[in-house]
Amino acid sequence: VDEFDEIARLYRPLTRGAPEALDLLDDAAVIPSRPGYDLVVTKDAIVAGVHFLPDDPLDLVARKLLRVNLSDLAAKAAEPYAYFLAVAWPTACGFAERERFAKGLAQDQQAFGLRLFGGDTVSTPGPLTASLTVMGWAPSGGAVRRGGAKVGDVVLVSGTIGDGGLGLKAAQGALEGVTHDEAAWLADRYRLPQPRLQLRQTLRDHASAAADVSDGLLADAGHVGTASGAGITLDLDSLPLSAAARTWVGAQPDPCAALLVLASLGDDYEIVCTARPSAVDALTTSAATAGVRLAAIGRVTAAHGLAARYAGAPVAIQRTGWSHV
Amino acid sequence: VDEFDEIARLYRPLTRGAPEALDLLDDAAVIPSRPGYDLVVTKDAIVAGVHFLPDDPLDLVARKLLRVNLSDLAAKAAEPYAYFLAVAWPTACGFAERERFAKGLAQDQQAFGLRLFGGDTVSTPGPLTASLTVMGWAPSGGAVRRGGAKVGDVVLVSGTIGDGGLGLKAAQGALEGVTHDEAAWLADRYRLPQPRLQLRQTLRDHASAAADVSDGLLADAGHVGTASGAGITLDLDSLPLSAAARTWVGAQPDPCAALLVLASLGDDYEIVCTARPSAVDALTTSAATAGVRLAAIGRVTAAHGLAARYAGAPVAIQRTGWSHV
Repeated sequence: VDEFDEIARLYRPLTRGAPEALDLLDDAAVIPSRPGYDLVVTKDAIVAGVHFLPDDPLDLVARKLLRVNLSDLAAKAAEPYAYFLAVAWPTACGFAERERFAKGLAQDQQAFGLRLFGGDTVSTPGPLTASLTVMGWAPSGGAVRRGGAKVGDVVLVSGTIGDGGLGLKAAQGALEGVTHDEAAWLADRYRLPQPRLQLRQTLRDHASAAADVSDGLLADAGHVGTASGAGITLDLDSLPLSAAARTWVGAQPDPCAALLVLASLGDDYEIVCTARPSAVDALTTSAATAGVRLAAIGRVTAAHGLAARYAGAPVAIQRTGWSHV
Repeated sequence: VDEFDEIARLYRPLTRGAPEALDLLDDAAVIPSRPGYDLVVTKDAIVAGVHFLPDDPLDLVARKLLRVNLSDLAAKAAEPYAYFLAVAWPTACGFAERERFAKGLAQDQQAFGLRLFGGDTVSTPGPLTASLTVMGWAPSGGAVRRGGAKVGDVVLVSGTIGDGGLGLKAAQGALEGVTHDEAAWLADRYRLPQPRLQLRQTLRDHASAAADVSDGLLADAGHVGTASGAGITLDLDSLPLSAAARTWVGAQPDPCAALLVLASLGDDYEIVCTARPSAVDALTTSAATAGVRLAAIGRVTAAHGLAARYAGAPVAIQRTGWSHV
């Protein structure tokens, strides 16, 4: 199977005939202007052994790669449109592995309304490395940004927090304090995040700022504060937790420290957003109608920086605690 | 230097204040629609030890990465606009290396009219790997494609052919048959290709199809034929050669075989294009006015596939000869 056969068999079907992709026969795509809309563009890269486990099934790796980028689009309230893929393949990965990766792309691009417009495949003596450039549309000026939070706004987060990070430990077989079923559920959350695209209209209508939770809730809420020129205070006892995460917290000696860990783990791909207090009811109601629970977890403050409280009292945040269970 | 310092010090200056980049504080860029224009998008990846030499200076590596992507824009007759960068850094690369890479980007993005809109930096246990997504504008419907060649069209190529591939050998200290100065000149051609962006208007006005010569002239001319549903016949004795390449050919036992090698090497980043016979004079005159020499080197044929001739006689093309001197 040479490069052109590989493109024809694995990648051309992923264009689903989109004229922009020029059948992948050119080295570029041509995207017509769409008056009244902004093109929202995000780009993320992943490396085997760093962002996913070397023995993770490649269809799941591909789906996660699409989803982490879609999560960025979700935070901007953009509608998925297209993607470009670059993969550096280790020589040990043959056609079967590449086919499995492409099958994962096919499955999720269909589910999320994306088409492949182009990219590049190269070989590497190193680990499998892939980068995706994902594009979405937002009505002109309608993309929600990180920098729109105002002092006094309420901070909210979708879904549950900490499952992705616990799931990584579970996938490594290194998570204690939960049941076997809970560990399996958490590992699935890690391997296959759910980008919150259904919050698009809700965020556009009611949120002042938004980001996705990829680096960890504390870090990403902090980014919203920094981009907005404000501070953020989070109430750890308000964190929405899954049943599995609650089990894990219950097994830890110090619940406050455990919550701080969950708020520091990455890979949740939930949405942290802010809203004027008067808009919070409309925001949460609209989200609930879209099938997503939003929990109020803190406030935007005049004092810069990130602060946390537990049972009403300040909690010291250890920067070094952010990326490890 | 943490990730946010690194973004602030190395990457934010590369946005040159473009509002689309949102100061790199968001995980996405927002590109307003530009009615009357198509957005042309290309994405290429490079790996240390595969696409560049592991000890190549990182500012030159960055500049080459920009230029190989700009070469794709040049072939589409698009005007450079913006780029997104993903880099997987080996842990051995510290701030000084990253700064040198960013300096190379700064130098060339200024020269070519690009701004950085976003991207991702991650770490890797493997070799330095980078991918660029580059965007340009073309008037609606004005992007030149690979698939527009018609039977009877003349095939032309810009500049000189084979220097990039000979330059790779020279950079490795493995090129014989040329002078020391010629070897140094060829190595420069390999390290720092010149994207032919000045041909933009010329191609748009007069060419029926175009591609850049990255995989090798035979391969890329073949792509034009395939995309156009036609064949291509090239006259090896018409290949435009640099003085250094002529020296090298003169040192080979078989000039026809030597020309075939030059037409098979990659990394030239010239433009191969086609034009109706009646448009060739206008095409070459317009190109000359833009400072680029175009040489007629063959014809588009009804018979599919790629053929070569030397002194009027057919030459067998060995697929296996395409990527090695």
